[in-house]
Order: sequence, then structure tokens, then C-alpha cells
Amino acid sequence: MDTYLKRRAELYTWMARNSVAVVVLEDTEGRRDPAIRYLSGHPGDALLILTITGHCVLCPWDEHLAEMTAQVDIIAPYTEFGRHPVTAVRELAARVGVPPRSRIEIPAITPYPLFLRYVEALFDYDVVCRDGGINAEIERMRSVKDGDEIALIEKACAITDGIIDLIERNIRSGKIKTEVDVAALIDREARLAGADGTGFETIAAGPTRSFGIHAVPPYTGGPFAGAGLSILDFGVKYAGYTSDVTLTVAAGELTKAQERQIALVEKAYKAALALYRPGVATREASLAVDALFRKANRSMPHALGHGIGLEAHEGPAIRNRDDNEWVYAPGMVVTLEPGLYDPKHGGCRLENDVLITETGNRTLTNSRVIRL
Amino acid sequence: MDTYLKRRAELYTWMARNSVAVVVLEDTEGRRDPAIRYLSGHPGDALLILTITGHCVLCPWDEHLAEMTAQVDIIAPYTEFGRHPVTAVRELAARVGVPPRSRIEIPAITPYPLFLRYVEALFDYDVVCRDGGINAEIERMRSVKDGDEIALIEKACAITDGIIDLIERNIRSGKIKTEVDVAALIDREARLAGADGTGFETIAAGPTRSFGIHAVPPYTGGPFAGAGLSILDFGVKYAGYTSDVTLTVAAGELTKAQERQIALVEKAYKAALALYRPGVATREASLAVDALFRKANRSMPHALGHGIGLEAHEGPAIRNRDDNEWVYAPGMVVTLEPGLYDPKHGGCRLENDVLITETGNRTLTNSRVIRL
Repeated sequence: MDTYLKRRAELYTWMARNSVAVVVLEDTEGRRDPAIRYLSGHPGDALLILTITGHCVLCPWDEHLAEMTAQVDIIAPYTEFGRHPVTAVRELAARVGVPPRSRIEIPAITPYPLFLRYVEALFDYDVVCRDGGINAEIERMRSVKDGDEIALIEKACAITDGIIDLIERNIRSGKIKTEVDVAALIDREARLAGADGTGFETIAAGPTRSFGIHAVPPYTGGPFAGAGLSILDFGVKYAGYTSDVTLTVAAGELTKAQERQIALVEKAYKAALALYRPGVATREASLAVDALFRKANRSMPHALGHGIGLEAHEGPAIRNRDDNEWVYAPGMVVTLEPGLYDPKHGGCRLENDVLITETGNRTLTNSRVIRL
Repeated sequence: MDTYLKRRAELYTWMARNSVAVVVLEDTEGRRDPAIRYLSGHPGDALLILTITGHCVLCPWDEHLAEMTAQVDIIAPYTEFGRHPVTAVRELAARVGVPPRSRIEIPAITPYPLFLRYVEALFDYDVVCRDGGINAEIERMRSVKDGDEIALIEKACAITDGIIDLIERNIRSGKIKTEVDVAALIDREARLAGADGTGFETIAAGPTRSFGIHAVPPYTGGPFAGAGLSILDFGVKYAGYTSDVTLTVAAGELTKAQERQIALVEKAYKAALALYRPGVATREASLAVDALFRKANRSMPHALGHGIGLEAHEGPAIRNRDDNEWVYAPGMVVTLEPGLYDPKHGGCRLENDVLITETGNRTLTNSRVIRL
């Protein structure tokens, strides 16, 4: 059975259970939603309309692109509707024969002024816009990858590993000297390996800048991998799916504080990995790392990890907030990325991508602390 | 007078005229708004709250960064409010003493579910969320650049021109052979010249891909600048402000159709530039180009131009839609980018950045059709 049909079939069931007759998804500048790609194969800049009767209508900005990429029932170009989402939804609902008073769910991120226009134009329908509705359901679905997705992520991770090894060789041989050297190498090698490119802007922070979680700007012409701690955070995107790793380069004679920081991060990494298994609340892993760092009078200024896939950050969340109810499940692909940062001694972060399996986990990437 | 104070003073006047006691601006993942940077110097990931009494409160995700960058009256870290915008606005409104029943305007792009939470938490205020309100006013302000902004854009444009010349030399000498070669060169040279990086993902499309307006993926390991038409669209971001140019490389013996296409684009460029002057509706320039192309039985599948600044696309719009009411005014910095695309013969686009002056315009970049 076709992957997209299968994913949509799950949603049609959800719609029936929740008395939702029509679901509207939108991907546009300023309001990106990879659910369109996930459910249709079309990369984005489109509306996707699902009906409880099993119709899937794509309304793309670029009709020709849609003809090449979309696996849907109907393609209705956006230009037919004066390029306005409200007009498109109203006319398409009429076209596929949605009965009056049906419930139409629009994206939870719909701005309030646009919501008012939907309500006005669809006055004979019950327009719903809510947190915890269709978008949350798709987020839940997307957090557990199917076989096709795991294969693509594994491919992204394999390219990532090749690049990590090449980076280590080129640092050792002196070919990589600056932040822009390493960022350029990643981008080029990813594309030459058939990837779409990088999954997000590479962060390459040499010893004077590695104390920041996310250096600004992300990379410069300044030195990388000189004496002290350098951090490199990057991802490779393959067929839409991104990896996300961070390696630390520790060069020259380190201070005791730097050695202690690296040891703590590696210890936290190991402790957390043992908790990355089905049935464990992701919050537990995060709290375990917090406790471990607290004992050493240190704290981590960011989350322990997150899901990866069509987005560089997606479900599940892996953090210590009270409202985090995510639980590891087989098929989730997540990052594990403990880090500590010190304005004087620099930062250390170690991040790999981990597939949750039936029995525990499998690490998909080979990022590490590289010592020179 | 300090730049940010001056910009905010304009807004305080607007607030008084429109009976708005408090304005809330937000920049966060998924809802970016450079107005925060424009009004405070802080690059983003923050709430900015302006009160009619002249208070400017920044609520940043990263307190340390804010201390280095923000020129505001008060910095109140987001962590104080449980990292929730509604809590932050409620508590800060109380802290600066906003009287009950005052009008509080929140961003027009606030999702409907979040709007409901604002209304609930701020029950004793009049919460407004609308198109055509504060965000539209800031968009209008930002469309006309002040002296500080023009200086930064000129710097971005100067770096851009240096890179264009280098690209031409390296294509002629054979150093640039692939799309990734030219994209990597741009990114590296921009950073080495002190720029933040590129203003958006570079689009480098060799002869087999230049027929697309925006090639997907934007660049690959494939050939660039071989026989036929190649398109290169890029921008350099300097201190937050981006340039945006497109050059076409025409190599080898061209077909008559290709020659005609280039001539048409250059003709349209020249005709439109004459209309880029104060008092002319931007729609007029767009319609003039449409008419010129229509006479040749061709049409352009994108807008003629747009404003540039803290965003790669901002006001004014320069397109032929009926609802486009923008008029060129001195201080606007805009693109002019006629283009024609043919699945068989490839595409040609010529784009430069243009400053509207008191008497006409001044072209800030030197992009061109490069013939090999």
C-alpha cells in the first residue's frame, strides 16, 4: 500500500472518531507545515484538504511541481482561487460536496484575523481552530517513523558519518583552519553525496565562541579547532529528512575545568542513553541528566534532545518541563545532546541521533569528542 | 538622537493617535518578526512591549545576549514568566501600571488559540489583534529606510558587487564549474568580508535547471555556467540587512529564442527602472513590464520586485495585483527583477537593488547578464 495513502488512512480514522468532516492544512511563507509533504509527497507551498469521505485535494502554488511530486486525488491550482486560502477552502468544500453544518478544522496556527475570514466565508459550516486537534494528531503520528522514513534518515545519517570522518582527517592534516572551512566542507560534501543540503544552518564555533549554545553568527572566518574547545553542530538533509549531530573538538593542553566538563558531558550522555528506551518518559531522561549536572554544580541551558525528521526539531520533546508527557516508543528518531558551557573555558556538547527500537535503542550516527 | 529611540517615538505617536495603550511584538520560532530588532537592536527570540507612556520593555529568551544588544528601558528575562508570552504580557502590563480597560494590541499573526488565552488572561483589558494595525504601521515605517539603514544596505551591496566580479573572473578562468562551487564561494567571501553570511539560500541553477523560478534543490553538484543559460540568485546579509541580486550567465552559442529572451528581459528592466521614482505606484511598473512581455506573447510568473532590508522580502510589494497600493517613496530600497523562463531554452532573470531618491533612483548593485 502506498505510503501516503496509508498515512492518510490513519487520519481519516481520526477524523471519523472526532467528527471532523474536513481538515485543512497549509504550508506557506511564515507558516511552514511539513505535514503537507508527509501526507502527499508535495514539498510545500500549498493547501492540503482531506475529507472524511476520503478525498485528498492539493491546492499548490506551483502546479507543475505538484504534477511531478504529489500523490493525491485532485490537484486544484491556487491561482483558480485568486491565491487566497479562504476562497480555496470554500470553493473546494463545495466542489467535493461537504454537507452544511459539517465541522471543518483549520490549522491551529491560523492567525486570528484570518480565522475570522474563514468563519465568515464558511458561515454554513462549523469552523474549528484549536490546539490539541488535527495538528497535534499529525505531530504524534510523525513522531513515530515508518519504514520508509527510517530508511531516509539512515541515509542522511550515513552521509553525516562520512562527513564527520572527513572533518576529523582534514582537521588533523591542517586542511580545515577556520569555521567557514568546516561549514563549506559540510555543505559541499552533503550535496555531492546526493543530499538536499544541510538540514539547518551549520554552527561552527571555535574556542573563543564555543561558550554560546548557538553562536551568532553561526560561523565566521575565525579559527576552528585551535587550542581549547570548539563545537560543531550540523545536519544533513536527505529527501527532506534531516540528521542532527554535534561534535566537540578538544585541542592542545586542556585545563582541569575543561577536562572535567568533557567528562561530565560524556557521563551524562551515557546515563541518558540507557533511558532512551520504549516506555520511559522522555522527561525522565532529562531529569536524570539535570540531577547528574546538579551534583557537580553545573546546569544545562537547553533541552536534552528532540525528535528529528522532516523538521530539525519535531516531536517528541525531550525536556524537563512539567507539561512534557512524551514517552519513548519504537520508531521514534531523536537526538541525545547533553552540553555544558562556560564563558571562560568554552563549551562542550555531544549529540547523536538515536532510533528507539522494540528493545532499547540504536545509535544512528557516530559523532564524538575529537581530541587533538 | 538614538536611532531606536527615534523609531519608537514614531510608534508612540501612532499609538496615541490610535488609542492603543500597549503594543506587544513577538519574535519566536515559527513566528519571526524583525520589528524587534528594528526597534530595540536585539536580534530576536523575544517579546517587545511598548507602552503609550513611553516604556519599552524587552523580554528576551537569552538575557545575556539582550544585555549586549538591546537599547531598551527594561530587560525582563522570559524565564521570569515561565516562558509563556501570555504570562509575560499580563505581568509586565501590571508592572508598568497599565490601567484597566486599556487597549492592548497583540501581533496580527497571533494564532487563534493563543489569542483566546490572551483574552482570558487579560480579561480586564481590551485585547486587539488585527490586520492593518500596529504590524502594518511598522511595515510601512520599515519600507522607507533611514540613513543608518541605507548605510548598512550599501555595505551589503558593495560586498555583493565584489563577489559578482570575483564570480565572473572565476567562471572565465574555469575555477567555478559547478553550482556548489559558486554557492560556496559566495558564502565564504561574504563572511570573510565581515558580513553575517548570505541573506537567503543561494539559488544557482545551471542550464538544465534554469527554467525554474526557484530551482529545487537550490544548488547541487551539477554544472554551472556551461553552454546555455544559468541563473544565480543570492544576497549578502550585513548587520542584519540583506542585498538580493540575480545574474544570468549566457554561455556558448545561443539559440535565437535565448537571445530574444535575454533582449526582452533587458528591455523590461530598462523600461521598469524609468518608473522606479517617487510618486509612481509600484503596480504601474509591474503592469508596464507585463504589457511589454505580453506583446511578445510571453509572461512573467513572479512579481517584478519587492522591498529589502531586515528581511529578503518586505514592503513595498511591486506586483500587478489590484490590491497593491504601494507607491515609490524616497528611502525605499527595492529589487527590480524581470525574468522569463522556458522549459526548453532555460531562464533569464536580471535583478538589482535600487534606492528610490528624491529625484528618481540610484542602483546599488551591479548585477548583469554575463556573456561567455
